[in-house]
Amino acid sequence: MARAAPPPLDSLPAGAWRARVPVRFSHCDPAGIVYFARYFDMLNGVVEDWFSGALGLDYHAFIRDRRVGLGYAHAGCDYVRPGRMGDQLTFAVLVERVGGGSLALSVPAYAGSEGALVARLVIATTDLDRHRSIPLPEDLRAAASRYQELCR
Amino acid sequence: MARAAPPPLDSLPAGAWRARVPVRFSHCDPAGIVYFARYFDMLNGVVEDWFSGALGLDYHAFIRDRRVGLGYAHAGCDYVRPGRMGDQLTFAVLVERVGGGSLALSVPAYAGSEGALVARLVIATTDLDRHRSIPLPEDLRAAASRYQELCR
Amino acid sequence: MARAAPPPLDSLPAGAWRARVPVRFSHCDPAGIVYFARYFDMLNGVVEDWFSGALGLDYHAFIRDRRVGLGYAHAGCDYVRPGRMGDQLTFAVLVERVGGGSLALSVPAYAGSEGALVARLVIATTDLDRHRSIPLPEDLRAAASRYQELCR
Amino acid sequence: MARAAPPPLDSLPAGAWRARVPVRFSHCDPAGIVYFARYFDMLNGVVEDWFSGALGLDYHAFIRDRRVGLGYAHAGCDYVRPGRMGDQLTFAVLVERVGGGSLALSVPAYAGSEGALVARLVIATTDLDRHRSIPLPEDLRAAASRYQELCR
Repeated sequence: MARAAPPPLDSLPAGAWRARVPVRFSHCDPAGIVYFARYFDMLNGVVEDWFSGALGLDYHAFIRDRRVGLGYAHAGCDYVRPGRMGDQLTFAVLVERVGGGSLALSVPAYAGSEGALVARLVIATTDLDRHRSIPLPEDLRAAASRYQELCR
Repeated sequence: MARAAPPPLDSLPAGAWRARVPVRFSHCDPAGIVYFARYFDMLNGVVEDWFSGALGLDYHAFIRDRRVGLGYAHAGCDYVRPGRMGDQLTFAVLVERVGGGSLALSVPAYAGSEGALVARLVIATTDLDRHRSIPLPEDLRAAASRYQELCR
Repeated sequence: MARAAPPPLDSLPAGAWRARVPVRFSHCDPAGIVYFARYFDMLNGVVEDWFSGALGLDYHAFIRDRRVGLGYAHAGCDYVRPGRMGDQLTFAVLVERVGGGSLALSVPAYAGSEGALVARLVIATTDLDRHRSIPLPEDLRAAASRYQELCR
Repeated sequence: MARAAPPPLDSLPAGAWRARVPVRFSHCDPAGIVYFARYFDMLNGVVEDWFSGALGLDYHAFIRDRRVGLGYAHAGCDYVRPGRMGDQLTFAVLVERVGGGSLALSVPAYAGSEGALVARLVIATTDLDRHRSIPLPEDLRAAASRYQELCR
């Protein structure tokens, strides 16, 4: 039952885009730590901001205007250190694989320089009107590939 | 990027405990389907009810009275069919492994007889006051092992 | 700063529809009680079930098929007793006013026979495609009026 | 059924503290607009940031270290314009009343210069260990009163 661990923060590629997320009261559960499901919600916010901040693409326009779904085929998280109220988490986004109709990301998170979790997210693009899988739109494919290069 | 699929509903062991969860308006996103992070919240509710309904244990008493944390070392989901408003989902709980300080579950879900997703959850028991890992409490270990037997 | 209090449980009209909602781990915050915003989410689930259970109407079909929005013009809650993990809350739905384009509800909730909160919700019907207010659909108006009579 | 409206943005006192909150995919419902309950969650984040940003107080330390609960006796919202994905909302915090054991806030929100909603929140301070109401801690009372003066 080996648990994946986030890579050391200072080993991340210089080009890796990062986001800061404060741990709020509302993120925490009666055990006083971030409720595990809340991390997935944070992760989606990180992905949204990565689209605009690193890829130069408008996440919301994909769904609203282009009717391209950016839902997940897989989402998973290995938790290595509990998040606590007042922590400032740093998330980094790494592209693992640009597929034909999917995009696999690895997203480690840190409290200070200490690894907190590492997520793996596989986005699968769909046609929201016809409810079926579609190839990655060309602008997304190109931007994700460029970003992947940048992080080598 | 092989995606795990839930086993056919009629292939589940007869002893496998099941829960019904309605897909609500609030579970769904602007793409009109269940928001992926919400499934993890549903899953925690299913695990809570499985504790009382199948293991005969009080989930809340672990945290509140016994100060035993039941947080996750890992939580992951493979999504194979989008959930839609008004769907009645059936979740089944299977014990994959009873470890020294953890409990690995496989939780497939279905809309009708159609597989919707399969989750893998690894619960790791902790001392909520000393903030460290502890062995599975004996009643939990015994009940989970019995349940695992029942589902063979 | 007078706070409204739920009416005594045994003073509710016999015809008032009720729903039971368990307080889950995930509903609670680091103060160990139900996070105030979560109650609004519970309330929407209660309203959904009231539509089918008391009015004989399909809440999801309004939004999905008829493109009638059932959003809120107002939502408010007076909290009189904290909800705790493991509580079984009873919510009751009372119609305060059937308006031209809105429906005002009063929704008290109880833990056992003890009042926990009372919410006031004003649903305003909208055309989801044209983004504007519309009169209450006739079936909703009729069913809500009948229900209001039943609770006199 | 008069609905309160946020005051015009340019009529707010110069000293009123403001927060920017992006409307995310996850905030929105199948009607494509911010789910009403999510606003309450945003509001709690705004209040947290107002504590540190305007009052110079650590919200999390109240709960975690001082065991002072900052729960709500009342929370209500009048919604006047739906929030949409990609909106940047501006929230402003106004102190309505500094009471003996409570603090009443009015929190209007805007999309651009257009009023979106106005919330009324009554925070009631409690002893989290003895589960009872307590007077406002002196530092909170003083800071909230100063802020109220500043906004006159």
